[in-house]
Amino acid sequence: MWAAGGRAALALGLALAAGAAALALGLGRALAARRRARREVLFFPSPPRCTEALLAQAEAPGAAPRPCPCPLPHGESSLGRLLRHLLSARRSLDLCLFAFSSPQLGRAVRLLHRRGVRVRVLTDAQYMALRGSQIGPLRLAGIPVRHDQESGYMHHKFAVVDGRLLITGSLNWTTQAIQNNRENVLVTDDAEYVTAFLDEFERIWEEYNPANYAFFPQGHNGSSTSTAKGRVRRATAKPESVQGG
Amino acid sequence: MWAAGGRAALALGLALAAGAAALALGLGRALAARRRARREVLFFPSPPRCTEALLAQAEAPGAAPRPCPCPLPHGESSLGRLLRHLLSARRSLDLCLFAFSSPQLGRAVRLLHRRGVRVRVLTDAQYMALRGSQIGPLRLAGIPVRHDQESGYMHHKFAVVDGRLLITGSLNWTTQAIQNNRENVLVTDDAEYVTAFLDEFERIWEEYNPANYAFFPQGHNGSSTSTAKGRVRRATAKPESVQGG
Repeated sequence: MWAAGGRAALALGLALAAGAAALALGLGRALAARRRARREVLFFPSPPRCTEALLAQAEAPGAAPRPCPCPLPHGESSLGRLLRHLLSARRSLDLCLFAFSSPQLGRAVRLLHRRGVRVRVLTDAQYMALRGSQIGPLRLAGIPVRHDQESGYMHHKFAVVDGRLLITGSLNWTTQAIQNNRENVLVTDDAEYVTAFLDEFERIWEEYNPANYAFFPQGHNGSSTSTAKGRVRRATAKPESVQGG
Repeated sequence: MWAAGGRAALALGLALAAGAAALALGLGRALAARRRARREVLFFPSPPRCTEALLAQAEAPGAAPRPCPCPLPHGESSLGRLLRHLLSARRSLDLCLFAFSSPQLGRAVRLLHRRGVRVRVLTDAQYMALRGSQIGPLRLAGIPVRHDQESGYMHHKFAVVDGRLLITGSLNWTTQAIQNNRENVLVTDDAEYVTAFLDEFERIWEEYNPANYAFFPQGHNGSSTSTAKGRVRRATAKPESVQGG
C-alpha cells in the first residue's frame, strides 16, 4: 500500500514540480524579453565626427573599407548612433520632422529609398522651404512628402524604422541642433510607444493628403463657405504643395 | 523500504514543486511590475479646455469644489493630463525647458513651489527673455533658475517629477504649442530613462552654475585668454543673469 501510494505521490510531486518549473521558465523568458526591450537615449550636442565610413559602407556594403582622409576625428557619436539606427531599416521608414537640413541624415534617407525601403516624410510647410532644407532633394529623389496646411507648426521630430523602432525627442534634424544645441533623442522598441506614434503618423498622413487641400480660405471672394474637395483648384498651389505627395 | 523511500520521494517532490511554484510566483510578480511601468503618450494640439477646477483644487485641496462659470468646455485634455502629472509632485520637480510661457503650467509650478516641492529650472538664455515668458514670475516667486551662456540653444523640453517620472517630448511649454502645434509628450517611470535624464539635468545644472560664468569673451580688451572664475565680474552681467541661482 505505502509503496504504491509512495510511488504515486512521487509521480504527482515530480509532475507538480515539472509544471511549476515550466511555468517559472516561461515567465523568466517573458521577463528577459521585456528586459531586452531597447531603451537608449542619445544626448546632444554631438561633437563633429567623420560619418563618411558609416555612410560609404551602407552605400556599398560589399566594397573594401577605405580609410577616410578627412581631418575630423573618427569614433562614436550621438549622430553616428542615430545614423546606424536609421540605416538598420529594411522595409519602411516613416519620418515626421519639423526641420530637416542635416546633409548626413538626408544622404542616409535617400540611400534607404534607393535600397527599396518605403520612405514617407511628413513635415512643416514653412520650415521645409528654408535654405538648406533636405525636403527638396528628398522629393527630387522620388520620396513622397506631405506637409501641413495649418497655422500651427508640424513640430514632431520622430522616426519609425520598420514599424518596430521609435526614434523621438527634442532634436530637429539640422546641423545646428546636432552640433550646438542641448538635445535628446529616445530610441525604443517598446510596442506601446511604437504603436502610438505609428497611429499618429497614419492620422497625420491622411490629414495632409493633398487631395484634401483647400486652396481658398472659407468664404473667399464671396463664395459659400463650403470649401469641399470638389472645389479645390490644384493649379493655384505653390509647386511644393503638389509634388511627391 | 519502499514505504520510507516513497515518503522521502513524496517530500522531495513536494519540496521541488513548492520551490518551483515560489520561483514562478516571484517571476510573475516581477513581470507584472514591469507591465505596470507607466507608458503614456500625450499628443497635441490639445483643444482648449477649462483647467481652473484642476488648479483651484490643487491650490486649496480641502475646499469645496466650485463649478467654473467660464465658457470653455470642461473635460480631459492633453494639457489636463500634463498638469495632473506635474501636480503629483511631492518632493521635487526638475524642469529643463527651451521655452516656457504657458500661464497654466506656470501657475502649477509656482503652486508646487509654495507647497514645499523643491523646484529647479534650466532654460535657454534667449527664449527666457521673450514677452510672456514664465521665467520671470518663477524667479520672483523664489524658484532657482539657471540658463546657458552658449551659442547653441538649451533645446530640451523635459521634466522629472520626484526623481521617478519623466515627461519629455517635442512640446515647448507655450500656449501656441499646446493649442496649435502637432506635438508629442512621453510620460514614463522606466528607471533607465528617468536616470539618464536626471543625470543630464545634474550635468547641465552644474555647467550653468553662475559661479562659472565668463562675462568677457576670451582675449577681451587685450587681456590674457585665461578667463578663469577668478576674473569674472558679476556686476557687468545683465540682471537676469545673476538672479535666482
